[in-house]
Amino acid sequence: MLAIEIIEKKKNGLQLNKEEIDFMIEGYIKGSIPDYQMSAFLMAIYFRGMDKDETSNLTMSFINSGDRVDLSGIKGIKVDKHSTGGVGDKISLIVIPLIACLGIPVAKMSGRGLGHTGGTIDKLESIEGFRVELGEDEFIENVNKYKMAITGQSANLVPADKKIYSLRDVTATVNSIPLIASSIMSKKIASGSDAIVLDVKVGTGAFMKTLDEAKELARTMVDIGDSLNRKTIAVITNMNQPLGREVGNANEIMEAIKVLRGEGEEDETIVALTISSYMAVLGGAIKDFATAYSELSNILRSALAVDKFKELVLIQGGNPDIIDNPAMLPQAKYGIEVKAKESGYVNKIDAETIGIAAMLLGAGRRTKDAIIDYAAGITLNKKIGDKVLKGETLCVLHTNKEENKEAIDRALEAYLIKEDIPEKEEYVYEIISSL
Amino acid sequence: MLAIEIIEKKKNGLQLNKEEIDFMIEGYIKGSIPDYQMSAFLMAIYFRGMDKDETSNLTMSFINSGDRVDLSGIKGIKVDKHSTGGVGDKISLIVIPLIACLGIPVAKMSGRGLGHTGGTIDKLESIEGFRVELGEDEFIENVNKYKMAITGQSANLVPADKKIYSLRDVTATVNSIPLIASSIMSKKIASGSDAIVLDVKVGTGAFMKTLDEAKELARTMVDIGDSLNRKTIAVITNMNQPLGREVGNANEIMEAIKVLRGEGEEDETIVALTISSYMAVLGGAIKDFATAYSELSNILRSALAVDKFKELVLIQGGNPDIIDNPAMLPQAKYGIEVKAKESGYVNKIDAETIGIAAMLLGAGRRTKDAIIDYAAGITLNKKIGDKVLKGETLCVLHTNKEENKEAIDRALEAYLIKEDIPEKEEYVYEIISSL
Repeated sequence: MLAIEIIEKKKNGLQLNKEEIDFMIEGYIKGSIPDYQMSAFLMAIYFRGMDKDETSNLTMSFINSGDRVDLSGIKGIKVDKHSTGGVGDKISLIVIPLIACLGIPVAKMSGRGLGHTGGTIDKLESIEGFRVELGEDEFIENVNKYKMAITGQSANLVPADKKIYSLRDVTATVNSIPLIASSIMSKKIASGSDAIVLDVKVGTGAFMKTLDEAKELARTMVDIGDSLNRKTIAVITNMNQPLGREVGNANEIMEAIKVLRGEGEEDETIVALTISSYMAVLGGAIKDFATAYSELSNILRSALAVDKFKELVLIQGGNPDIIDNPAMLPQAKYGIEVKAKESGYVNKIDAETIGIAAMLLGAGRRTKDAIIDYAAGITLNKKIGDKVLKGETLCVLHTNKEENKEAIDRALEAYLIKEDIPEKEEYVYEIISSL
Repeated sequence: MLAIEIIEKKKNGLQLNKEEIDFMIEGYIKGSIPDYQMSAFLMAIYFRGMDKDETSNLTMSFINSGDRVDLSGIKGIKVDKHSTGGVGDKISLIVIPLIACLGIPVAKMSGRGLGHTGGTIDKLESIEGFRVELGEDEFIENVNKYKMAITGQSANLVPADKKIYSLRDVTATVNSIPLIASSIMSKKIASGSDAIVLDVKVGTGAFMKTLDEAKELARTMVDIGDSLNRKTIAVITNMNQPLGREVGNANEIMEAIKVLRGEGEEDETIVALTISSYMAVLGGAIKDFATAYSELSNILRSALAVDKFKELVLIQGGNPDIIDNPAMLPQAKYGIEVKAKESGYVNKIDAETIGIAAMLLGAGRRTKDAIIDYAAGITLNKKIGDKVLKGETLCVLHTNKEENKEAIDRALEAYLIKEDIPEKEEYVYEIISSL
């Protein structure tokens, strides 16, 4: 087999078989296929796409490139969730204790964030003492005992995806649906999950800008799940403005606690309940979505969920007092109020621009090695549909930096204020599944 | 400017401007743009194509990457010709003396061949003593004095094309019309020619397999010529079987001499006269094609053309006696007759397969450093349309090798013999020009 023949075949729109895909991925990891052949191959995939079989074979090839987490020591169906990424996305923080309340094991492995704000792991680190690197034994023991644990991803999980992602990042081949889908699904499956609920975000703050793209990505991932015997449900959700009112790390922990107390914003509460309900169904705890939704809503209204989160903090070494006293979380020195320049209704909040502003304040990583300021972030006082008077505060920037002009400009620029009342947007657009 | 943004732009089908193209080419030559970004860029060009302006800017960027030959010391309009490559293509050998007979300066720079048989330079080297590396002064002096000279290409002619071609070769990005067109035209223009006649071959032995592809390549090259102020005419010619009856090096010299004596095969004579006539028109020696064609035909029937070739051999140090005594050219030890297995009419001769057979006999280079056997080659006793009886000789393989099974199999496989008489094919399909 020759790499150039396989590139040529894909370039001409022909289907690659399992052996050819394995040859490319294994060769690239071993170093027998150079970067310049892989990047031409990736660009050909961008243009020609991959069918179901190819995408599933690529996913398997990715998985086989590294370690697989063995979760067989955990009793029950292990259901994982994954978000394609958005701004203010604290859904995982809510879902872990909520699902654990139902007795479904949540063995969560999470990455760090490279982008606007931290990942779930980074957010949890804003809680003093919280340990995000558990050994395999402790991880499995905790899940069996408490039905939940969260830890950082193993270094050797899907190394092929890691190497190829770095190359895609510098060769304009990131936005290919089969490449995105196999990258996500390979990590979920290598992490040992039996079933997966995907939160596919669409909108200004998401990677997928249109509903059609989001549906295609969702369908592709669901198909991979089907072909590799992992029950998979994709929920397509709105990312046209940040979720909830808090964007950052410590402040997202604070807001997650509010949701767990049943006092969260409507958008994040609905998305969290929808994702959790499908997890409950896939986990076999509850038969149908409607019953799960109603039962989980009741749990949010009780003290059960927030107590479960307190338990998670405690067992992973964090200070549980922050649950009742969120002011103990890192606090920024400055709170800059960004004021409206005109009166009207908030018609749009560009989520990506808010995300960039948060990163500028210190909440995210511009580069791999950047250090996150857990206290930095943004509180959105006004969201889409809210009435605003000139001079009223749109949002508050939390920062320890002296110089914040660019972040202020960005935050202001993110808001579109008009005279008309905008139409109310949906939070959950569609469910994609073969079940 | 960032390479990734330029790759992204091309990937999205947007037009690149001159600065962006220069940035990519200059960066690649300097080493600031790595192979893996260039190969992704080339693959994006393969899929998205390039418009007239982009192709012309790419050609200029190629030209500017190296030396330009200064032919201003030569009086008159310098007309060059270029063939996209075929099997048995000895047209340049015929055209050089023929055009010089009209008093039009022919300053021919030629490459060596990598493929089935040698290039024009290699073929001439089969003449004992023939010097193919002339210094610039001698080259210009000879053209002024004798109206003709031929030399190998300068090493630093269009280095960007050389580097990019090597990358295309291993990344399945060779067959892109704008890349092929700019590669060819940059070398012609950097060689100092004022006007260019292109012999675009189409058929089984050519790079372009269909007339549509050939027309597109021709049109693209003519457009580049127009935009860079070089009068350009493309002649699309038949390469469904080898040109003439000889494929090799010394034997092609021998056959070129026959054509120059007016005793050549119909196909190669017509193609040579067509190319030469357009060169005569572009060179300003004769007003219209018909007059040029008739005048050049007369020259072939006289002794003028073959005498001019004898002069070329003499002034470049070769033994002119070979003209009257071609048996003095290198002769192979063996002549293997390949016999027909059935009776009928020759319907097809796959030119590429014949080319490969010739290469196997030693006539061409499999790798850059391979040594050509000037005596090796093939004589086609039968061509398309010829009647064949079972056991009759189809072709003769000239070789110094002991073991020639694969070449014999290939030669036999190249011939398609059927009961029906095939339709006569055209030699010249179409002329593409903006003049």
